[in-house]
Amino acid sequence: MSSARNTAARGRANSRSAAVPAYKALYEQLRSGILTGQLAAGTRLPPSRTLATETGLSRNTVLAAFEQLQAEGYIIGRQGSGTYVADLLPEQLLATSEPPNRLAAASPPSAVTTAKLSARGERLALARRVPLPSVLGREPRGTSFLIGLPALDAFPFETWGKLYCERLRKSGPRLMRYDDPAGYRPLREAIAGYISTARGIHCLADQVIVTSGSQQALEFCARILLDPGDAAWIEDPGYLGARAALVSASARIIPVPVDENGLDVTAGQALEPNARLAAVTPSHQFPLGHTMSLERRLALIDWAGRNDSWIVEDDYDAEFRYLGRPHAALMAIDSHQRVIYVGTFSKVLFPSLRLGYVIAPPDLVDGFLAAHLSTDMHAHVIDQAVVADFIEQGHFARHLRRMRVLHRERQQQLVRLAEPLSENLRLAPSDGGLHLVGWLADHRDDRAVAKATLRQGVHVWPLSTHYLRSEAKPAILLGYAGTTAEDMRRGIATLSAVLS
Amino acid sequence: MSSARNTAARGRANSRSAAVPAYKALYEQLRSGILTGQLAAGTRLPPSRTLATETGLSRNTVLAAFEQLQAEGYIIGRQGSGTYVADLLPEQLLATSEPPNRLAAASPPSAVTTAKLSARGERLALARRVPLPSVLGREPRGTSFLIGLPALDAFPFETWGKLYCERLRKSGPRLMRYDDPAGYRPLREAIAGYISTARGIHCLADQVIVTSGSQQALEFCARILLDPGDAAWIEDPGYLGARAALVSASARIIPVPVDENGLDVTAGQALEPNARLAAVTPSHQFPLGHTMSLERRLALIDWAGRNDSWIVEDDYDAEFRYLGRPHAALMAIDSHQRVIYVGTFSKVLFPSLRLGYVIAPPDLVDGFLAAHLSTDMHAHVIDQAVVADFIEQGHFARHLRRMRVLHRERQQQLVRLAEPLSENLRLAPSDGGLHLVGWLADHRDDRAVAKATLRQGVHVWPLSTHYLRSEAKPAILLGYAGTTAEDMRRGIATLSAVLS
Repeated sequence: MSSARNTAARGRANSRSAAVPAYKALYEQLRSGILTGQLAAGTRLPPSRTLATETGLSRNTVLAAFEQLQAEGYIIGRQGSGTYVADLLPEQLLATSEPPNRLAAASPPSAVTTAKLSARGERLALARRVPLPSVLGREPRGTSFLIGLPALDAFPFETWGKLYCERLRKSGPRLMRYDDPAGYRPLREAIAGYISTARGIHCLADQVIVTSGSQQALEFCARILLDPGDAAWIEDPGYLGARAALVSASARIIPVPVDENGLDVTAGQALEPNARLAAVTPSHQFPLGHTMSLERRLALIDWAGRNDSWIVEDDYDAEFRYLGRPHAALMAIDSHQRVIYVGTFSKVLFPSLRLGYVIAPPDLVDGFLAAHLSTDMHAHVIDQAVVADFIEQGHFARHLRRMRVLHRERQQQLVRLAEPLSENLRLAPSDGGLHLVGWLADHRDDRAVAKATLRQGVHVWPLSTHYLRSEAKPAILLGYAGTTAEDMRRGIATLSAVLS
Repeated sequence: MSSARNTAARGRANSRSAAVPAYKALYEQLRSGILTGQLAAGTRLPPSRTLATETGLSRNTVLAAFEQLQAEGYIIGRQGSGTYVADLLPEQLLATSEPPNRLAAASPPSAVTTAKLSARGERLALARRVPLPSVLGREPRGTSFLIGLPALDAFPFETWGKLYCERLRKSGPRLMRYDDPAGYRPLREAIAGYISTARGIHCLADQVIVTSGSQQALEFCARILLDPGDAAWIEDPGYLGARAALVSASARIIPVPVDENGLDVTAGQALEPNARLAAVTPSHQFPLGHTMSLERRLALIDWAGRNDSWIVEDDYDAEFRYLGRPHAALMAIDSHQRVIYVGTFSKVLFPSLRLGYVIAPPDLVDGFLAAHLSTDMHAHVIDQAVVADFIEQGHFARHLRRMRVLHRERQQQLVRLAEPLSENLRLAPSDGGLHLVGWLADHRDDRAVAKATLRQGVHVWPLSTHYLRSEAKPAILLGYAGTTAEDMRRGIATLSAVLS
């Protein structure tokens, strides 16, 4: 407590200039104290009245600073028992490339030193440290084991290029103007048709909003459905993109454990029953690869229906299932209209296309259109027309069938090649997806393994970066779908050398 | 005052459910009271302590509600004199298709009735009503006078298609993966080269961030440079996209009058000297078309330098200048590193491409990359490569030269065709751009004129929608660049019939 007072008192003395409001100076000082560890996790802050008296600030000012710190997740107010430093700081939600407890030392809060970005901008800038594995420098040496990549080497370039030029010739100027923020109408119709057959979701084209990949879909959900400080469940371990979208919306993130049946709904209810939103990957949990059981699906929908909460169903690679039929989508079995379905063409076509989509309950469509209008108007149009043609002319279904066979072959090849390493690397079987989880011996540091292989151009990815609270066992993710036979052999040889 | 108390008391009684925090219920009730006009503009709210006593809520709760209302621009706190209902509500900043004073009647606040979107989402959803003229239904009858469109009928489709297919063939898989959030490196280099020659800005490719059009660039600026409630100057009249981006970032918008020398810096300083950001269109003020004078440019830069404020320079159609040399960009003459330059390919190539760019001071680059990562990863890549090739192979310079000639011819044609209407429509001369302002007789209602012509498929645009506070005289914007000779004749005939 006394350190909170000291911090605050210094804050007043150092107040940058008259232009910085007093509450913001106090906010910055307290935040800095929290980040540097002077104010440790769980520390109870003095009551606002006390802090006001001791610093000579008005109570109003102190409350405003508390309000902002709380909205951003640095402190937590507990009804009737005061205000505490959070034990999971926003920076820890993002800066997963360093173990959380080394964060403060590794990265002094730059807001205090540079005062360039706004507080919101600073929080966002930390997302820069989220190690999105596929967003690489410009010349990765090979693509071995990159996660999130389909078999780009087998993409039908010629067909795609032909469709593109045809579209330009046939309807150039019409496709070059501004368009509907919801997306190119024939593509929305094609998506509605596809998703009905493939995922059992019967929706109108009016409910489909085309986005710039699933990342924009997730970010729109977070922005229009949550207010700063609203609680949101995410899977632990989970997808870093969902985490970044929620942090950028100033959501209070509640990591909920997952097991082989998917997100543990009971645990989520114990942690925060009133979360406004749950972001899940039920078809093929990212990164562990489990399918959410029907029981859990129903429990999740029931919870959302009773609480008026939202479920964001990120169905990122439902298309790649090699055994049996996929479960129906959550949206297909939800009678409460609480599910927003998120799909992407990144895996079934290619990631740099940056086209994904939302299927929204009718009441939410306007909110998504508004998000588009104020952020980027709409997605690029000519490629949308090409995707629509690609689907309508049957190329898409054909491509998916070929990719399912090829990806499955590559999975089997990986399993075969990795067999000699089985003492050091236990591959978990999976009936779908684009990557496998390879469990390491308990004493291994998966980040160190990833670093060592990366030095030789091989991109295995440490599982531990995906954990927030649950205990992580060391493992690496091996993307096989986008890895050619040759790259795979080279990658396994490198990995073998690193592990032994 | 008593109505504020009644509103608040009802708020407590109706509190939706235990899950809605008390401060939010109060917030919603007060907001609803403000929107329906029960709490009129300029009304002084009771002191928080009084309101707390009278409603039985804690003072803390009341302050939290005030805080949110203030951050969103519904109320304004005046040092030492209390809290007042703002006279320019967030909804009025967006819903410009109806005159502000008819807003409350026209659109009951849907948050209160549906409780679907978050408060932030509701605020954003109002942006849906911003009448962006070029975002049309799918089948506009002709493109006559649409603003913001270049001569798409003269676009070199074949060259573009050829480059696209060549790129696919030569480097397909490399261009199909995830890429750098800053954009495709060769395009960033091409932009840096172009902007140095064309606009006198000497920057490194590292300072260039490719965005999804200038709209995303503006939205990123608002998000990473402002916190909710921070003041931002915009031009009055001004660009609706800039306004939407700032509202979506919960900025407090300060409309600053413009005259024939551009934004009135002295007026801005009188209105809000401590604004954190000024969004301007100095090359060719949108929508009036004036060029900001050198004196004003220097005054603006000086203000920003002294205040550590940011200038967002939206240089949206600097390329289309038909007489004389353009002024150097603000960024080129700013020695304080306070300018962020925003450019777009929407006008020089085509709008549906959705590619624009930011040139940022080096310290801000990370913030922009973070915004990209959490919102959409990066812009679509193949088209970026095509634009880079288009520039490097000289097609871009050639296309620009042709477009300058063609656009100028179309401007002259419009002036000729409109001459017989001069009693009812006075075209303001302009030395550049893509549209002309046509002043109507003082008694005319420009929205009514626009509605009447639209019924016949002719898209003139009412100038008054671009005004917030300054007094608007009736005028229409006539986009000539994207209008063919035939459409122009038809459009003028329609307009002539409507005006006489």
